[in-house]
Amino acid sequence: VTRETLNVLFVSPVDKKRRGDLMGVSSYRVLNFYPLPSLSSPHRNLSLFPAAQREHLHQKMSENGALPRGGKVLTVDTMNANVKKVDYAVRGPIVQRAVQIEKELKEGVKKPFEEVIKANIGDAHAMGQRPITFFRQVMALCTYPQLLDDNKFPEDAKNRARRILQSCGGNSIGAYTTSQGIECVRHDVANYIQRRDGGIPSDPDNIYLTTGASDGIVTILKLLTAGEGRTRTGVMISIPQYPLYSASIAELGAVQVNYYLNEEKCWSLDISELQRSLQAAREHCNPRVLCIINPGNPTGQVQSRQCIEDVIQFAAKENLFLMADEVYQDNVYAEGCEFHSFKKVLFEMGPEYSSKVELVSFHSTSKCYMGECGFRGGYMEVINMDPEVKAQLTKLVSVRLCPPAPGQALMDLVVNSPKPGEPSYQTFMMERTAILSALAEKAKLTEEILNTVPGIRCNPVQGAMYSFPCITLPERAINEAKAKGQAPDMFYCMKLLEETGICLVPGSGFGQREGTYHFRMTILPPTDKLKILLNKLKEFHQKFTQQYS
Amino acid sequence: VTRETLNVLFVSPVDKKRRGDLMGVSSYRVLNFYPLPSLSSPHRNLSLFPAAQREHLHQKMSENGALPRGGKVLTVDTMNANVKKVDYAVRGPIVQRAVQIEKELKEGVKKPFEEVIKANIGDAHAMGQRPITFFRQVMALCTYPQLLDDNKFPEDAKNRARRILQSCGGNSIGAYTTSQGIECVRHDVANYIQRRDGGIPSDPDNIYLTTGASDGIVTILKLLTAGEGRTRTGVMISIPQYPLYSASIAELGAVQVNYYLNEEKCWSLDISELQRSLQAAREHCNPRVLCIINPGNPTGQVQSRQCIEDVIQFAAKENLFLMADEVYQDNVYAEGCEFHSFKKVLFEMGPEYSSKVELVSFHSTSKCYMGECGFRGGYMEVINMDPEVKAQLTKLVSVRLCPPAPGQALMDLVVNSPKPGEPSYQTFMMERTAILSALAEKAKLTEEILNTVPGIRCNPVQGAMYSFPCITLPERAINEAKAKGQAPDMFYCMKLLEETGICLVPGSGFGQREGTYHFRMTILPPTDKLKILLNKLKEFHQKFTQQYS
Repeated sequence: VTRETLNVLFVSPVDKKRRGDLMGVSSYRVLNFYPLPSLSSPHRNLSLFPAAQREHLHQKMSENGALPRGGKVLTVDTMNANVKKVDYAVRGPIVQRAVQIEKELKEGVKKPFEEVIKANIGDAHAMGQRPITFFRQVMALCTYPQLLDDNKFPEDAKNRARRILQSCGGNSIGAYTTSQGIECVRHDVANYIQRRDGGIPSDPDNIYLTTGASDGIVTILKLLTAGEGRTRTGVMISIPQYPLYSASIAELGAVQVNYYLNEEKCWSLDISELQRSLQAAREHCNPRVLCIINPGNPTGQVQSRQCIEDVIQFAAKENLFLMADEVYQDNVYAEGCEFHSFKKVLFEMGPEYSSKVELVSFHSTSKCYMGECGFRGGYMEVINMDPEVKAQLTKLVSVRLCPPAPGQALMDLVVNSPKPGEPSYQTFMMERTAILSALAEKAKLTEEILNTVPGIRCNPVQGAMYSFPCITLPERAINEAKAKGQAPDMFYCMKLLEETGICLVPGSGFGQREGTYHFRMTILPPTDKLKILLNKLKEFHQKFTQQYS
Repeated sequence: VTRETLNVLFVSPVDKKRRGDLMGVSSYRVLNFYPLPSLSSPHRNLSLFPAAQREHLHQKMSENGALPRGGKVLTVDTMNANVKKVDYAVRGPIVQRAVQIEKELKEGVKKPFEEVIKANIGDAHAMGQRPITFFRQVMALCTYPQLLDDNKFPEDAKNRARRILQSCGGNSIGAYTTSQGIECVRHDVANYIQRRDGGIPSDPDNIYLTTGASDGIVTILKLLTAGEGRTRTGVMISIPQYPLYSASIAELGAVQVNYYLNEEKCWSLDISELQRSLQAAREHCNPRVLCIINPGNPTGQVQSRQCIEDVIQFAAKENLFLMADEVYQDNVYAEGCEFHSFKKVLFEMGPEYSSKVELVSFHSTSKCYMGECGFRGGYMEVINMDPEVKAQLTKLVSVRLCPPAPGQALMDLVVNSPKPGEPSYQTFMMERTAILSALAEKAKLTEEILNTVPGIRCNPVQGAMYSFPCITLPERAINEAKAKGQAPDMFYCMKLLEETGICLVPGSGFGQREGTYHFRMTILPPTDKLKILLNKLKEFHQKFTQQYS
């Protein structure tokens, strides 16, 4: 035993205070001893040991609270295991590679394309959509109230700004707001919901402003996560799903319970599938929550009123807590489709349901015609929540003090947009309509062009901002991907990115039926660009199919 | 057995699929049976049962995934148990009561005061502090770029806005940013740190922008939380502490490990106390993290360079991950005190430490001279973090997409404020200096006036934004509080609020040595108001002492 090797001796806790003086070795109870592979290595760490030994070593170390010199306190072996399980495809490896390629292009590296088109995420402004003038005018006035004296700004914008500022501490959006959100904003949200839902009352006290919808969704899932083993909370999510759900479920250590949407029937939701999924889950966990995304992400379907009623009936019968992700509520394009809020349908079903079913609905400033993702604005409405639980929710959100005040102000404008007769009304309506009609046109265009490609099958994009077509991949491509340890559609999307600069998210990131392959593509690029993108994609798919057939 | 009472029969999982047809009772294995207290009650729920039965019932129900009609899926009995343990005094019951009183005043209810003074939270703008003009000009330009053509705005403000917008997708702060934060902002943060720390290099790749400092702190604690029982992560926090720490530790189910600051020595930190605390904790958990708040919240002390060096040495010796909450870094008032960043001291200690000790430092737009709490801006710098863990951190933050872009832009202005020679420099410096000198004056004033009151002992407010004086409470008051099930200083603060309208946070919300009592009061109110407040407090304390003696 030399001074060098002594660094990896482990001593029991009682002796640890004397670890500084390692040469007095007689007084140490040696727990384990591993010779160092290289004594001259300046940063000895556990990676030098064979895996099996490493694991044992780590365990011993964390039991003793001791790590050898040069080792880290926090390693992937000693970190939160749930966090390791988290996966978020929308910003996963393919997007990281896209960012890298962008840098390479800037540095002058030659590529078969001139720019990366990020069709991986619903980020409207990044795709060139202009912000709504009225919203930004009011936000500028709130930010720098000296502008209230400027006659360049319309009166209605000034009135909105004054009203918001009067609700802020010290009349500044730099002050903390109440944790639940600025009171006048919550009132405006409640009024908006009431108008939207044909007069069904909404209580400002049931409104919580959030940091984007994601924040609200995670908070509610957090409240619901309890139990251990077979009693652990199960969360029912659609497959394909938006990966915020699977990521949060993993992080919280809840149990993901999949129900499959019916691709053959335009990604609709079958109650029989819900029933199957629930029964299967009850064998191993306690399914308590049913999450619905309507209009669908990534699948773009819009649920019929009947379907929503059936889901509510199912939730009531099976004692499930309902979470309705309704952030795309203005994004409905297909003829004959209409957005029905879960809240409205619930209340139209009568007191047997409306007094009973626990429902939280989420909305955001990031989607619809606004696309103000960067502001992280959002709200949730909680319905039939147990008052004691609501008090816990209020307490929980208070720990983070408040959602960003600019996001709250922006949410206010979304729910309290210019009214007929106000000076900004016409411009606002023109801008709003232009964006939504362009989206409808692009939804149609996407479906049409994709369906001309042999081996691509695309359901109508009824709503939201994405197409999620099914792609047929040649056997050889599938095998090559598997040999590389990659999901076949990841392999496909990676090749697409390298060859065309188009960045999509593989279907495996959202979940899909075994043996099927998809990708998610936003319909957000400007029409001209979208056409080019779709035709490049078509060309690529044909080439790819040929190459691997 | 009637159809009515059958609703509360519980059936085993194997039979559950037939639950719809309850009358075929012979095929059900009856697990429990409780007669309903009132058969006509329309909303049968568990509160109808005696407590002992209710608990059994709940357990059975969640095992079976079934709840009787009218019961809630989510109750305090079936919710996340960790969330229930969360406590956040800064926005606790006393603040809720303050809000209520404000409403009562508005409604014309007569009180012995005319307004509520919320000295419970470090919310500068709410206390009348004006925003920094330059910051708000740039933010208005970023929000409504049409203003870039307006000659009312100085050129340096326009340049900053253009630079930030160029880093945003589609040149809009409405676009999502990268999850780690806007690249140019991270560069500016790194440059700021490097300047602040006398040239010690900072890597933009180690900077993560956050939604206020709270968000960063919770994220790092989340990564560090692992193990079960005796190997569960212990988090060492100062007592008194800022309750975000205890709240997050409770939420994550980590173990809170207290070390006490030395009130007799101006709330300084003794290494012997750290050692005591660590040793005690190692008996029952795995303490891996040491959290430091400097300048201190709620205690207002500023750590000496020597103390920081000792802490780092201790962390190195004991293999602790360091978290340095440095959000008050510009708030240093006492003569002879200076802010030393943990990063700087770490690197000055030489490569033995600087290449090894894992450190994360947090900063924010909410404190210092800015007080822009509502924007929820912040950053953290991670040092010596294991690269694999860093990849996990990057993945984890990507799930929430990005911190609010306006908060990121504001953080940029804080670290890249006007330079000498730029048109906004003089105004900026004037505003900044005025705020910081007023704070220094108020820190002194608070200490002086409080120390004139018999039974109140206040350490110098060396930094941050709070005084945390020790108050002597008469035995009778303590007994009356205990009889009410209240912490004695909560009883005191509640009375203070009801009688004077002054809202403070009791020391029990931050933690304190057994048998001592304190309150936290911000020094933020304008000087005139602060004087009135302090004198009212003095009067109240004397009256209270008399009343209960």
